[in-house]
Amino acid sequence: MEQFASVRVEKDYIGEKNVPADAYYGIQTLRAVENFPITGYPVNEHLIKAIAIVKKSAAQANLITGQLDEKVAQAIIQASDEIIAGQLHDQFLVDPIQGGAGTSMNMNANEVIANRALEILGQPKGSYTVISPNTHVNMAQSTNDAFPTAIHIAVLAKVADLLIASEALHATFKKKAVEFHPLLKMGRTHLQDAVPIRLGQEFEAYARVLGRDIGRISLSRQYLYEVNMGATAVGTGLNADPMYIVKVVQFLSENSGFDLMSAEDLVDATQNTDAYVQVSAALRGCMINMSKISNDLRLMASGPRTGLAEISLPARQPGSSIMPGKVNPVMAEVMNQVAFQVIGNDTTICLASEAGQFELNVMEPVLVFNLLQSLEIMTNVFTVFRNFCLDGIQAHAEHMENYVDNSIGIITAINPHVGYEAAAAIAKEALETGKPIRELCIASGILTEEELDVILHPFEMTNPGISGKELLKKKELVRV
Amino acid sequence: MEQFASVRVEKDYIGEKNVPADAYYGIQTLRAVENFPITGYPVNEHLIKAIAIVKKSAAQANLITGQLDEKVAQAIIQASDEIIAGQLHDQFLVDPIQGGAGTSMNMNANEVIANRALEILGQPKGSYTVISPNTHVNMAQSTNDAFPTAIHIAVLAKVADLLIASEALHATFKKKAVEFHPLLKMGRTHLQDAVPIRLGQEFEAYARVLGRDIGRISLSRQYLYEVNMGATAVGTGLNADPMYIVKVVQFLSENSGFDLMSAEDLVDATQNTDAYVQVSAALRGCMINMSKISNDLRLMASGPRTGLAEISLPARQPGSSIMPGKVNPVMAEVMNQVAFQVIGNDTTICLASEAGQFELNVMEPVLVFNLLQSLEIMTNVFTVFRNFCLDGIQAHAEHMENYVDNSIGIITAINPHVGYEAAAAIAKEALETGKPIRELCIASGILTEEELDVILHPFEMTNPGISGKELLKKKELVRV
Amino acid sequence: MEQFASVRVEKDYIGEKNVPADAYYGIQTLRAVENFPITGYPVNEHLIKAIAIVKKSAAQANLITGQLDEKVAQAIIQASDEIIAGQLHDQFLVDPIQGGAGTSMNMNANEVIANRALEILGQPKGSYTVISPNTHVNMAQSTNDAFPTAIHIAVLAKVADLLIASEALHATFKKKAVEFHPLLKMGRTHLQDAVPIRLGQEFEAYARVLGRDIGRISLSRQYLYEVNMGATAVGTGLNADPMYIVKVVQFLSENSGFDLMSAEDLVDATQNTDAYVQVSAALRGCMINMSKISNDLRLMASGPRTGLAEISLPARQPGSSIMPGKVNPVMAEVMNQVAFQVIGNDTTICLASEAGQFELNVMEPVLVFNLLQSLEIMTNVFTVFRNFCLDGIQAHAEHMENYVDNSIGIITAINPHVGYEAAAAIAKEALETGKPIRELCIASGILTEEELDVILHPFEMTNPGISGKELLKKKELVRV
Amino acid sequence: MEQFASVRVEKDYIGEKNVPADAYYGIQTLRAVENFPITGYPVNEHLIKAIAIVKKSAAQANLITGQLDEKVAQAIIQASDEIIAGQLHDQFLVDPIQGGAGTSMNMNANEVIANRALEILGQPKGSYTVISPNTHVNMAQSTNDAFPTAIHIAVLAKVADLLIASEALHATFKKKAVEFHPLLKMGRTHLQDAVPIRLGQEFEAYARVLGRDIGRISLSRQYLYEVNMGATAVGTGLNADPMYIVKVVQFLSENSGFDLMSAEDLVDATQNTDAYVQVSAALRGCMINMSKISNDLRLMASGPRTGLAEISLPARQPGSSIMPGKVNPVMAEVMNQVAFQVIGNDTTICLASEAGQFELNVMEPVLVFNLLQSLEIMTNVFTVFRNFCLDGIQAHAEHMENYVDNSIGIITAINPHVGYEAAAAIAKEALETGKPIRELCIASGILTEEELDVILHPFEMTNPGISGKELLKKKELVRV
Repeated sequence: MEQFASVRVEKDYIGEKNVPADAYYGIQTLRAVENFPITGYPVNEHLIKAIAIVKKSAAQANLITGQLDEKVAQAIIQASDEIIAGQLHDQFLVDPIQGGAGTSMNMNANEVIANRALEILGQPKGSYTVISPNTHVNMAQSTNDAFPTAIHIAVLAKVADLLIASEALHATFKKKAVEFHPLLKMGRTHLQDAVPIRLGQEFEAYARVLGRDIGRISLSRQYLYEVNMGATAVGTGLNADPMYIVKVVQFLSENSGFDLMSAEDLVDATQNTDAYVQVSAALRGCMINMSKISNDLRLMASGPRTGLAEISLPARQPGSSIMPGKVNPVMAEVMNQVAFQVIGNDTTICLASEAGQFELNVMEPVLVFNLLQSLEIMTNVFTVFRNFCLDGIQAHAEHMENYVDNSIGIITAINPHVGYEAAAAIAKEALETGKPIRELCIASGILTEEELDVILHPFEMTNPGISGKELLKKKELVRV
Repeated sequence: MEQFASVRVEKDYIGEKNVPADAYYGIQTLRAVENFPITGYPVNEHLIKAIAIVKKSAAQANLITGQLDEKVAQAIIQASDEIIAGQLHDQFLVDPIQGGAGTSMNMNANEVIANRALEILGQPKGSYTVISPNTHVNMAQSTNDAFPTAIHIAVLAKVADLLIASEALHATFKKKAVEFHPLLKMGRTHLQDAVPIRLGQEFEAYARVLGRDIGRISLSRQYLYEVNMGATAVGTGLNADPMYIVKVVQFLSENSGFDLMSAEDLVDATQNTDAYVQVSAALRGCMINMSKISNDLRLMASGPRTGLAEISLPARQPGSSIMPGKVNPVMAEVMNQVAFQVIGNDTTICLASEAGQFELNVMEPVLVFNLLQSLEIMTNVFTVFRNFCLDGIQAHAEHMENYVDNSIGIITAINPHVGYEAAAAIAKEALETGKPIRELCIASGILTEEELDVILHPFEMTNPGISGKELLKKKELVRV
Repeated sequence: MEQFASVRVEKDYIGEKNVPADAYYGIQTLRAVENFPITGYPVNEHLIKAIAIVKKSAAQANLITGQLDEKVAQAIIQASDEIIAGQLHDQFLVDPIQGGAGTSMNMNANEVIANRALEILGQPKGSYTVISPNTHVNMAQSTNDAFPTAIHIAVLAKVADLLIASEALHATFKKKAVEFHPLLKMGRTHLQDAVPIRLGQEFEAYARVLGRDIGRISLSRQYLYEVNMGATAVGTGLNADPMYIVKVVQFLSENSGFDLMSAEDLVDATQNTDAYVQVSAALRGCMINMSKISNDLRLMASGPRTGLAEISLPARQPGSSIMPGKVNPVMAEVMNQVAFQVIGNDTTICLASEAGQFELNVMEPVLVFNLLQSLEIMTNVFTVFRNFCLDGIQAHAEHMENYVDNSIGIITAINPHVGYEAAAAIAKEALETGKPIRELCIASGILTEEELDVILHPFEMTNPGISGKELLKKKELVRV
Repeated sequence: MEQFASVRVEKDYIGEKNVPADAYYGIQTLRAVENFPITGYPVNEHLIKAIAIVKKSAAQANLITGQLDEKVAQAIIQASDEIIAGQLHDQFLVDPIQGGAGTSMNMNANEVIANRALEILGQPKGSYTVISPNTHVNMAQSTNDAFPTAIHIAVLAKVADLLIASEALHATFKKKAVEFHPLLKMGRTHLQDAVPIRLGQEFEAYARVLGRDIGRISLSRQYLYEVNMGATAVGTGLNADPMYIVKVVQFLSENSGFDLMSAEDLVDATQNTDAYVQVSAALRGCMINMSKISNDLRLMASGPRTGLAEISLPARQPGSSIMPGKVNPVMAEVMNQVAFQVIGNDTTICLASEAGQFELNVMEPVLVFNLLQSLEIMTNVFTVFRNFCLDGIQAHAEHMENYVDNSIGIITAINPHVGYEAAAAIAKEALETGKPIRELCIASGILTEEELDVILHPFEMTNPGISGKELLKKKELVRV
């Protein structure tokens, strides 16, 4: 047995164990610590708080149905409230990756709450005949309903945080779209020069896809609002009072601030983890887009001399110890990396979800570990990316315009005005001589500088329709 | 140059090529065939039809805006109709995995339609001054709007097929849930005996998760209804008449039967592929659940002698050449395999989506190849799984009931009636002697056979609340 | 029952079925066709041939052990040889994705060979008392040893093809490395200008990583040479004559041309699919690198006016219907797409491998389908990419050199000659004025044109050590 | 600026920042902390130590080449040694997921070492003119060579740990294979009864596949021994003295204990991350197998009453708060979960590897974070799984034997002795009546109890050849 300075002995149906005398956790927590020294990371604090919300709500419901003595119930509620307020989190020792479908996390909470409640009642720790982790704190619950319910609450809380960060990021993309609205730049497909576009249109496109992702993430919560409290072991609700089931969900809503409801079918809700896969898929989808956007930004900011150099990202830190002045797009790079992490996490989540068997998915711990991590790192990166990168992006308007003027692609806009054959001839000459299209048009006398100013106007060239169409009408009169 | 019995010479700005004289395809198709001999598979027929719908709709819109001559337009429309009706598909030679963002697929369609239209007009094939694949068939289009629009239509068509197959599968799960409604079986968590459940509840849970998947798949079409026709090269709509943009989408709706609309922002709609990722994620999510269900069915059907043997799946084919009579759960196994394929396809789709750059995602060919394949194989497997497996599943009611009777888990239901200590003692005795709980209860005199019939009644034990609660009330009166 | 013009009736222990009178396949093939209409693709021809090799080898071994009558054995051998030669492949109707761990593929082969062997002996098809698909063609085999053995042979054959294509690609990278050996270009890290490098060094790096991949792919065959023939149903070899086991592997080596051996532990070899995962991982690893290389090539070839424009890839097909002269990097793009496909296939392969249970992995059909596809499309794309892209890449030496001359990064090479402070001052001035480093060095009189020619010489700047070190020594004498 | 109780001001070319007066880290660490608050996890301690090894080795080499003053060099070496010994790790504040290709981790180390070295020399922290993080600690290095070299060393160290844990696990599988050598059990394919096998054969198969994985993991280190120290920024070795390059690698070997060598081509070694993908693929492959094995163990241990109940796993913790005595296979479940995590990590690693561009892969931080985590959690889980699960597995020999006796599959062994027709008839009767094969054989008089004892002997039935072959020879004499 472990040696602690001062201990109390606890026992369960596996045997006995010494527990440090002042610990709020108990024997089952220690067993889990011994069994699962896997990642060394702590359990996500949102999950700890959510479990406490579950415990509090159950105690409230059990008080109403008369199963729980008022004094005991109040002590459990107070202990839970302390954990919800951020206290006692250092008593949660179990590893986020653990066997047992979350039993160890559930029991860690049950033990901490029981011992703190005992303390509140002036009883020594470990006096489980007065307040037992199983009989009282876990009353009318199974890990199989309490733990998934806590996951739902924790994920809802984290998604709410993420949505705030996402909306802020979206607003900044929108702001930059307005700021860059008039700036002409070369559009590229296949990384090859195509036809002109405006930088504002690029950022508007970024804003829009992120906007859809926000909608998708928001919508992905669809089934998180349905909890399986009252399902007990396999979803049949064996030994769970129907009135308790109704009440506990009301208290859960109240205590969590989310509008929760009882899942229509508790058997289904206990064995399936599709609600999490749905959230993770929305997160992954979003990060696929954010990675593409980061790649675009890094490409546009490439340079300063031998890249595209269309924009510059704020300098956040020295980029090299060898080359003075080198600054790298570190905030975009970390966005890419978070994208890769979230996509990898999603793989793990899907594997875990597929591995459910019969009445339960015992792989929930690794699933929720990855899901909460994805939510956390996305929220974090969105905030720093917005503040430290996106918000301060500067456009090199002149350089971008030079690209357009120099490009052959603008011949596409001139095409309707001079006919395909003349246009093709000019394009060919441009390609061979390296001269700009504009110069060649003027030199050959087929279009005047004034006409070209109209045709090649940023807004003419980058909106649907024929650029300089009005001009074309006049011209046709003349040229006929 | 290739040698064909009889040829015509075609040219483009890369050079010249011999084309078989009777071929409807042309030089660019042949270039693509030479460049991309990758999978050897044909392009999905739904995609071929969808491209023809796009070409027909464009011709109709160009006719209205006056850009296309009536005779030419009608010939293009007729040629397109023939392809929509399933003809000329053997003229589509390009490989589904190809560089160029679908240009080769688009040009293959343009060439086949141009040559068939020429034929309709009594002109020799290759008379591209009369009807050109580019100028006339591809009028006001770019691959970058025509191809994604076709993908949207093809995917919508395939999703519709899948939803029909899914609904049928769902109905059969529901039917089996009713059929198996009264049958008691042992619930299992962690593959360990838990508490009783009814087989109908299992199948109801399967039905419900599939029901949610149907909802998710249906919803995932959200952005498929928005098409980017009129975007031309980069989404700015350069050279596309605004009236054409309105009209072409109306015709697309009419010709496809889907209620399509113009994407609000064509730049966004041209560069982002999130709409496909969204569909693929829904498909993947569904198959994760179907794989779990298949695993459950295979476990329940394990045996016949040394497995669980709770159900049997219809015998579809001999399972072994060595052991006479061996029958394997082949339909469930193929469902698992389709799940793995769909999950792998989804990986490819995400990688392709992330690889978009600036104004376009050039990886669309591999993306759509995988997406259409996922839809196809899911539709196929759902149909055969339903007909050849699910519909004919038979339950071994007596065997399942024996399991329950023999289990120690039912002590959980008896618990409230005899008190925890007495229950635990019986459980211990059962574990040691191997005797059934029921027998021990009767032998010890704490419950009568009649009382046990009530407490252990399938519906009592598998619905929320205390099993035999009424009995408990009476008993308490007596026992006090 | 199906209606065919002329039929024979076959039966198995599930029941009877009409088979077209002239079909070489039989009842079990038809059952599989009915059960598994999944992908619609044919089984890979290498796998068909490999199964025939297995059947031939088994017949040869059974002839030697005296289990098989000479006349029957010779007929089976001849029928197998015809399939190995590419005949009768149209009789293989089963879908590559199928339940039953390959039983249907095995039985399809057994039936085709039995009926062709009967024909050879002048017997009517279906005379299974003379030659039975099970008793004679499948003699001493189970699907569980015959099918994996065939997979090993098919994969070995495909890997051999891939290695040839890979070596050729590698040689071309090496050739380009030599061709581009002297060409200076700007090195980039974080897509930001770093210090100079030579284009030949880039291509040498590409060659080297591919070289390692070739080594890894070659090595990944490690366990493919061990086959489990003789394992029969579960690897214990029940009813398989030990002499047969020895002989059949000798014949397999002879007939396949691969140096095969019996797996040391047939139970292990029958249930585990790690040998395939190992190959797939090597393929995936290679394509990750090829995708990175393709991305680099597409970036370097970006332009022609508004990109990096350091190299140009051969024009393979028109890239746009709107912009005359647009050419896209289609061969690099298709390489990326094959990479995404192979990575997705690898996901499927891993999922299938993980799903093995007890004595067998029943998910082998989807596993081998993906593995053979990966090998096939890699071989194909390597060949066209080499011929149509890599081999014809042209460098824009002057443009690349201008980049270097214009860059600030070359100050790093000048640093040791003028001291950090002077260098930093020049860098700052360059950044502010846009003037080249070289010009500023000369203007300020700290280095002469001749000295700069030495220091900024391509080979000085791009090899380990201080650029112009000799010069430095002389200078130090002077400057002291 | 941040407010600390007592500060020093540091500056870099971005600007100034307050640093806590007693901090060993400096301004660039603080910038990184501000920029990358992503995961909240610390950097892996093996990586911190490996960076210190790199710094020490560089100082030693720079001392030899005369670039570094002896006193400064010795102070840097001492400071590095302290970090290698586990001190000062709390000064490493940067997040493992960070932009900048590891620059922040490198600079964090440079700053901590510089300030500790200054302290050793009796200088105040921040006296960077005496010892500068860049000029002295990072001398002749770039993040682009120092950081990958550190990753190689850290990964080598972690792989060594994993191999020790793996070998121990392998030995325990082997031990159990010996322990379970004689125990007959039913073999299962498709989860359906097949033919008998011995439990020892199962565990031997598990041992063997793990043995191959150990070999693959060991081999996957192949390119980790090649480091790119001396590559500086892009692999060309600009400003790195060739003698330094030789020396630093010698010192790296000495200090790390690994037999390191200089990569043949430093450009290649700087831009490619295939060496990590190779390791990760080997880890993933191993965990695929471990997950399959865990699934098998969980299936065999299913029960106790309504599952297969062939083995039992050691009870490690109470499995339920509702059902007294429920014990779950938690150690196998955590193995599955680690498998899912490692597979997900591998996805991230591949995505990061594919995202390299030109001369560098800037995604290395997320890559190494996942790779080290995979190594760590595998090592951890292998150890507890071995100690707390595998080592204590107990077989239920009698129950397994009953399964075999009761099975119909054993008819396959009897087949050769009685002829196929007689055997099939007995099998049919067994299926219909539920009677054991053995009983029916005796009852029908075709085999005696003694004969059956020979034929159905565990070792006869589970080794290649016909079970009871000798008996068959005698019998044939008699029966003819």
